[in-house]
Amino acid sequence: MKKVVKFGGSSLASAEQFTKVKDIICSDIDRRYVVPSAPGKRFSGDTKVTDMLYTCYAAAEQDEDFSDKLAKIQARYNEIINGLGLTLSLDTQFEEIASKFAAKAGKEYAASRGEYLNGIIMANYLGYEFVDAAEVIRFNHDGSFNAAVTNKIMSKRLEKVERAVIPGFFGAEEDGTIRTFSRGGSDITGSIVARAVNANLYENWTDVSGCMVADPRIIRNPEPITTITYKELRELSYMGASVLHEDAIFPVRQAGIPINIKNTNSPEDRGTMIVEKTCHVPKYTITGIAGKKDFVAINIEKDMMNAEIGFGRKVLEAFEKYGISFEHMPSGVDTMTVIVHQSEFEEKEQKVLTEIKHLVHPDVLDLEPDIALIAIVGRGMREARGTAGRIFSALAHAKVNVKMIDQGSSEINIIVGVKNSEFETAIKAIYDIFVVSQL
Amino acid sequence: MKKVVKFGGSSLASAEQFTKVKDIICSDIDRRYVVPSAPGKRFSGDTKVTDMLYTCYAAAEQDEDFSDKLAKIQARYNEIINGLGLTLSLDTQFEEIASKFAAKAGKEYAASRGEYLNGIIMANYLGYEFVDAAEVIRFNHDGSFNAAVTNKIMSKRLEKVERAVIPGFFGAEEDGTIRTFSRGGSDITGSIVARAVNANLYENWTDVSGCMVADPRIIRNPEPITTITYKELRELSYMGASVLHEDAIFPVRQAGIPINIKNTNSPEDRGTMIVEKTCHVPKYTITGIAGKKDFVAINIEKDMMNAEIGFGRKVLEAFEKYGISFEHMPSGVDTMTVIVHQSEFEEKEQKVLTEIKHLVHPDVLDLEPDIALIAIVGRGMREARGTAGRIFSALAHAKVNVKMIDQGSSEINIIVGVKNSEFETAIKAIYDIFVVSQL
Repeated sequence: MKKVVKFGGSSLASAEQFTKVKDIICSDIDRRYVVPSAPGKRFSGDTKVTDMLYTCYAAAEQDEDFSDKLAKIQARYNEIINGLGLTLSLDTQFEEIASKFAAKAGKEYAASRGEYLNGIIMANYLGYEFVDAAEVIRFNHDGSFNAAVTNKIMSKRLEKVERAVIPGFFGAEEDGTIRTFSRGGSDITGSIVARAVNANLYENWTDVSGCMVADPRIIRNPEPITTITYKELRELSYMGASVLHEDAIFPVRQAGIPINIKNTNSPEDRGTMIVEKTCHVPKYTITGIAGKKDFVAINIEKDMMNAEIGFGRKVLEAFEKYGISFEHMPSGVDTMTVIVHQSEFEEKEQKVLTEIKHLVHPDVLDLEPDIALIAIVGRGMREARGTAGRIFSALAHAKVNVKMIDQGSSEINIIVGVKNSEFETAIKAIYDIFVVSQL
Repeated sequence: MKKVVKFGGSSLASAEQFTKVKDIICSDIDRRYVVPSAPGKRFSGDTKVTDMLYTCYAAAEQDEDFSDKLAKIQARYNEIINGLGLTLSLDTQFEEIASKFAAKAGKEYAASRGEYLNGIIMANYLGYEFVDAAEVIRFNHDGSFNAAVTNKIMSKRLEKVERAVIPGFFGAEEDGTIRTFSRGGSDITGSIVARAVNANLYENWTDVSGCMVADPRIIRNPEPITTITYKELRELSYMGASVLHEDAIFPVRQAGIPINIKNTNSPEDRGTMIVEKTCHVPKYTITGIAGKKDFVAINIEKDMMNAEIGFGRKVLEAFEKYGISFEHMPSGVDTMTVIVHQSEFEEKEQKVLTEIKHLVHPDVLDLEPDIALIAIVGRGMREARGTAGRIFSALAHAKVNVKMIDQGSSEINIIVGVKNSEFETAIKAIYDIFVVSQL
C-alpha cells in the first residue's frame, strides 16, 4: 500500500503543528510520500511565509535592501527547527536565495521557496529523502504544466525511493527555471505524486474535517460530508463550494485514486472521501448545498415560439457571439429564460439584447438582475422520492420566492434561482430541512 | 354593443337544441351575429351530419348511387325544420347539392354543406339575414386563408346588416370554389366575424361550461376556469388541453376582443372568459393543469461542459439539423437534458445521436423514453409563495418520481416530467392539492 499525504500551510505553521504531522505520518507505515505546503498562519493576523516571500522579493525587485525581510523569514523557519530540536541549518539555502533575489530570479522562484525550505525541514524531521520538485515536476516554457513528461520523470525518480518528501506548489522548466502552479497548488503536486507512484490513496490534510454540507460562513458548524463522488464534488465546486481545484482532482481521478480530505488537528475524524463511484449510502438525502450570487435572467417571450425550430439555438448563438456562456435555460411554451453571470453579461448587455432581437424578434425581452443560484446536490436524491417537495416546502415556509427551477434527468442536482437578498435564508432553510430536522 | 355568437354542433343537433339557442340569442339584443356549426350528435352513437356528408360524397366519387344517403341527410334537417314548426323547404338546396356531388365538386364542398344548410335554417328561425360564408370568407388558390381580403369584404358586407347568420367552417376562393378550415373550423369563422364587425365579445357556445382546470378524462367533473389569459390558455393548449384552435384565437386576440366559452345546455353558467389581461384573482392558485405523454429525454454528460462556450448551441444544432424541435433543456453543471417528442425523434434517433457525438464529444449520452410532461399553469403562481413546494409534496405523497423540473422566470408555468405510467396519478395529485383540498 502506498499513500501520498499532502499537508496544507496551517498544518505546518509551527513546530507544534509539525509534531502533529509527524505523529500522523508515523501512525501509518503506508504514508510514504509527503507533500508539504509553506508554513501558514500560526494565529489569526499572522502572515503566511509565501506572502513574506512575495513582499521580500518585491523589495529586491525595487533594488531596496531586503536583508531584514529575508532574515525574518529565516527566523520563522528557525523557530520551527529549534522547536523540533533539529540540528539543521538553512544558512546555505538562504545565501542562495539572497543572491538569486538580488539577481531577480522571478516571482515564481521567490514564491516557491516557502515549500522548498519547508520540505527540507520535513525530510530532516521525518528521516525521509528530500526530492526537489524542480527535479521531478516539469513545466513547458510557456508556463503550462507538462503532465506526460512529469509523470515519466517522477515515476522513475521515486521508483526506488521508499519514503520521500516532495515540496508542493512548484516545478521547473527543462533549463531549471522555477515555475509554480496557481496558489493552493500544493494540492496539485500531491495529486501528481499520487498518480506517479500509483498510490492507493491521496490524503489531503488541512484544518477542517473534510468538505461540509454547506458553507460555514452561512451555516454555523455544518456537518461534514463523509463520502462524495467526483461528479457531486464538481457540481458543488462549480457552484461555489471551495474544495480542491479542478487541476488537483484531474490526475488522481484519471488514475482512479480516491482522495481523503483530513483534519491535521483532529486526525481521528473520518474526513471526506472523494471517490469515482460508491455504494456508501449518504447520511442525508442531499450530499451538499452550494450557491453563488449575481446572475441575471434574460426572459424572452414570443407567441408560437415552440413552433419555431431553431429558436433556442439562435438565442444561444447571440450569447455565444459575445463570448458569454449560459448557465441555465429553463423554458415554458412561449417563454424562455437564459441565466448568465451578471459580471460577464453587464458590459455586453446591449449588444446581446440587440442580437437576440435581430435573430428571433421576441415579443417581450426582459432582464431580471441580482439572481442567486443554489445547487442542491446528492446521489441519494435519485432514490429518495419527494426531495423536490421538501426543498420547495422549506423555501415556501421560509418565505423565499423561487424565481427558477431546473432539474434534468441526471437527478443528482436541483438548481433553484432566488433573489440575491434571499440567498442565505434559502440555504439555511434547505440545510435545516435535510440535515437539522431531517424531516 | 355587438356580440358574435358561435354555436357548436351539439348545440344545434336537434330542434330542441335550436330552441335553446334561440332563447339564448333573444335574451340579449347584443347577440347580433350568429355562426352555426353543422348538426352534431343527438345522442351517443349518433352520426354527425358532416360525417354523413363525407360518406355520401365518397359514394358519389365512386360513381355509386348516393341518393338514399343524401335523403337521410335531408331527413335530419327536415326533422329540425318540422320540430321548430318552420315553413321552410331545402329542396332547391338539396337538388343543387345532388348535382354538384354528381359532378364531383370536391370533398371540401361536400363537408361545407352541413354548416351552409344549418345556417339557412337558423336565419329563417331567428328572422336574421343569411350571409353565405362563400361570399365573405376568402381563401387563396393554395387553400390558405386570406385574412386581409376577408376582413375587408366581410366588414363591408356586414356594415349595414344589423343581424345576420354566417355559417361556420368554410369560405371560397375568388372563383367561388368552396374551401374549408380544418375541422372545428367554425370557431375560426366566429373569430373572423368578431374581428370584422369589431365585436365587444366573441361568445363560443358549446356543450361544456368552459375550460376545465384539468382533463375530464382524468379528473371526474373538474372545476371550470372562470377567467384565463391568452398566455395561460396557450400554455395549456400546447400541453394538450383541448380548447380553441390557435387559428381561432388569433383574429380576436389581435383585435383585443375577449372570448367567452359558454354552455348552451346551462346558459346561466359563467363559463370561461379568455382575455388578454385581467386583474381577476383566480379561485385557485393554479389556473389549469395539462399534459402530454410520449416524450424522450436525451441526457448528455461531459466533464467541464460549463466551461465550453457554445456547448448548448451545438447540441441544439444537432436536433435542428434533423428538423426536431426541443421542448425543454434543463441542465446541471456537467449535464444537460434535451426533451423532445418521441414520435418526432424515433426515426432520426441514431442520426441525431451521431451528430451530437460528433459536435460535442460527450462522456455519456443516454436516452430515457416514455416521459410525460405536465404543465401547471397559473398567473396566480407569481404571487403565491410555495406553489412549487405544494406540487412536489403532492407528487412525493402520491409516490410519483419526478424526472425533470423546469420553471423559468415567467413564473406562470412549472413543467414537470414524470414516467408515462405515472402521468394520471401525478395529475390527480396536483389537482387534489390545489382544487379539492386547497391545502
